[in-house]
Amino acid sequence: MPISANDTNRKSWIEVPENSDFPLQNIPFGVFLTKENVVTVGTRIGNHAIDLGALQQLNYFEGIELTDDMFMQDTLNDFISDGKKTWRLVRNRIADIFDQTNPKLRDNPKHKDIVIFDIADVEMQLPVLIGDYTDFYSSKEHATNVGKMFRDPENALLPNWLHIPVGYHGRSSTIVPSGIPVHRPIGQTLPAGETTPVFGPSRLIDFELETAFITTDANVMGEMIPINEAEDYIFGMVLLNDWSARDIQKWEYVPLGPFLAKNFASSISPWIVTMDALEPFRVPGPKQNPSPLPYLLQKGKHSFDINLEVAIKPEDAQPTVVSNSNFKYMYWTMNQQLTHHTSNGCRVNSGDMMGSGTISGPTPDSYGSMLELTWGGKNPITLNDGTERKFINDNDTVIMKGFCKNSKVRIGFGEVSTKLLPPFVRK
Amino acid sequence: MPISANDTNRKSWIEVPENSDFPLQNIPFGVFLTKENVVTVGTRIGNHAIDLGALQQLNYFEGIELTDDMFMQDTLNDFISDGKKTWRLVRNRIADIFDQTNPKLRDNPKHKDIVIFDIADVEMQLPVLIGDYTDFYSSKEHATNVGKMFRDPENALLPNWLHIPVGYHGRSSTIVPSGIPVHRPIGQTLPAGETTPVFGPSRLIDFELETAFITTDANVMGEMIPINEAEDYIFGMVLLNDWSARDIQKWEYVPLGPFLAKNFASSISPWIVTMDALEPFRVPGPKQNPSPLPYLLQKGKHSFDINLEVAIKPEDAQPTVVSNSNFKYMYWTMNQQLTHHTSNGCRVNSGDMMGSGTISGPTPDSYGSMLELTWGGKNPITLNDGTERKFINDNDTVIMKGFCKNSKVRIGFGEVSTKLLPPFVRK
Repeated sequence: MPISANDTNRKSWIEVPENSDFPLQNIPFGVFLTKENVVTVGTRIGNHAIDLGALQQLNYFEGIELTDDMFMQDTLNDFISDGKKTWRLVRNRIADIFDQTNPKLRDNPKHKDIVIFDIADVEMQLPVLIGDYTDFYSSKEHATNVGKMFRDPENALLPNWLHIPVGYHGRSSTIVPSGIPVHRPIGQTLPAGETTPVFGPSRLIDFELETAFITTDANVMGEMIPINEAEDYIFGMVLLNDWSARDIQKWEYVPLGPFLAKNFASSISPWIVTMDALEPFRVPGPKQNPSPLPYLLQKGKHSFDINLEVAIKPEDAQPTVVSNSNFKYMYWTMNQQLTHHTSNGCRVNSGDMMGSGTISGPTPDSYGSMLELTWGGKNPITLNDGTERKFINDNDTVIMKGFCKNSKVRIGFGEVSTKLLPPFVRK
Repeated sequence: MPISANDTNRKSWIEVPENSDFPLQNIPFGVFLTKENVVTVGTRIGNHAIDLGALQQLNYFEGIELTDDMFMQDTLNDFISDGKKTWRLVRNRIADIFDQTNPKLRDNPKHKDIVIFDIADVEMQLPVLIGDYTDFYSSKEHATNVGKMFRDPENALLPNWLHIPVGYHGRSSTIVPSGIPVHRPIGQTLPAGETTPVFGPSRLIDFELETAFITTDANVMGEMIPINEAEDYIFGMVLLNDWSARDIQKWEYVPLGPFLAKNFASSISPWIVTMDALEPFRVPGPKQNPSPLPYLLQKGKHSFDINLEVAIKPEDAQPTVVSNSNFKYMYWTMNQQLTHHTSNGCRVNSGDMMGSGTISGPTPDSYGSMLELTWGGKNPITLNDGTERKFINDNDTVIMKGFCKNSKVRIGFGEVSTKLLPPFVRK
């Protein structure tokens, strides 16, 4: 039986800098483009990208049942479709190939030259073709903050919130990986005190600090995934900046929910960190009171201790960290979200993405959006360069990071870093 | 220059029954499976399905620039990507091949045997891989009826409704073609007078009579499609039954909109009728007052006179028509919907689908949902077999039809016919 990829005694023969998000115990999955214009499925160790397509061609996955072109693809969808058993076999094999005690690839310079790239020399792509994107609203602190600001401070949570992992559908076509800049959207807004809307650039662009999970094929149409099976269908997680235009949202969202306020862009970190890699960081979530209905009830530890951070980097200045939050604050778990999503028989496919909703913690410095951090713009944040922000300015870059850490290992997501450009001008 | 496919003097050498939706002037596009398990792109004339893949292999599209396997595919996405000029060349060529005066295929029994199928011998598939599905809410009568029932009868329309073609994102993964039965969904609902929800089969399953349009690649991310260009990006239309669970909807939809109440199933008619085929039925839409903002303003005829009909067929009885409506009642046009959708830079791809929202006419017999037809269940409908319906019963089949007709030609959609099964039981 091979040693688990999670064994913290293992080290790689690839150098892993101190505090790297990508030790041998991580082995995330992604898709990258090389300088030779080859797109391949890959993983990352330290500051090196590994071409899994090349590894497969060179027979390093011998003995694992994989279709011939499993990794020579521009998405992970087929690999994810193969299910948990295959994910584990492949992840453990990769840990084995790069273990410092294994000479096979280590001592083969020709192969190394084909397989290993400096991370600076590759361009990360979207890791999956996202068929459907759902965004939940599962942080109690966030829902409460929004309720206080826009509805009734005394009854901030709506009656359904403690019973339902509230969610809605987002737009797949505008999900982009870290590094792709996005334009400030134009749209309809209603100026204060007016009854006729105006059309122009949004003035209130916000980030939303989220994570998202990527699913495998979960069910046939009609079938509910029981809560105790839900985690078998979750491949891994990414960081998600669910860009929002608060002024457009306010005018458009009743009664059918946010639409153009959200679907101009959603940015994700490019490496999918597997649930297996996150296993050591399992923690209980907040106590759920009232008890969820039986179909959503699950005992044990189903949350994860993932540190999250947001920084704003003005065009010509260093980044300022504006929020420190943690995934463990989420009220509803990913299992509950997935089970609820399928409870009506909604089909979930390989490569679907489900966002957590804004992750706000209990303290004001842990809120996951500018809306909450500045309390609707009333309390601007001063950045390190002395400038103030109520929301995000043109040419600001929003950088989200996430990592887990214990005394033995650090498993991270890298970052999702996105520059906000001025409104698009048609040529 | 070839004669237009729309020329009403043309007849096909394939027999077209009287009142068929599919004369030579229609030439819709779809995807079907033959008894030999071959999937191909096709069209329909009368009661025959035409294999366009076979026609291409047999060189009938010579002179039109097409990739070699354009029609030997299981979706129309690539063909739609090729744009309006190609759609027209192909549609006119098909009209030419099947024109009664053209002996080329007509007098070639070998080729006919390969190309032409009895419609009863093929199984219609989803015509496109739908990347993103958006549903609008663009019938003023429907929005008013819903507002009267659930909000304020005196102020039934919300303040944004006359300014925005209100829309929201739906779920692509549960869109199915006509003929695929759907299960009654299970979900959370709040019994009247209670504060704690229950979990069980929805009791209020409804249809929504809609049409939908299928887009081609419209824009790069960030770019708005100007209103006067919008129709260049619309390939054609289908009928859409946007199944709804009214009790689930009522409990879940605030504040982020309908989710599980809708995403258990959406059924579409399998043949995409092109905008070119619908051209003779262009009519002005309702007068828009107040005038839309300039980015949504367009003069001329941008609606279509499409008769729509809904029937309910109990398990062992004939269908009863319960609604007669018309697409021309829609307040917001498809052009306005598409321009609004891209106004914030949201990317629209080939194969995206955009639903009209429930199409209700001005009279009670033209309402597009049971919710409105029975006014929330207060006025049950009596079917021809003497049974009553407030909503849809298990084993009922809902059949929607749509067609355009003038003195010279009838262009139709066929139907979307869907049986509602009892809740799914996991094996």
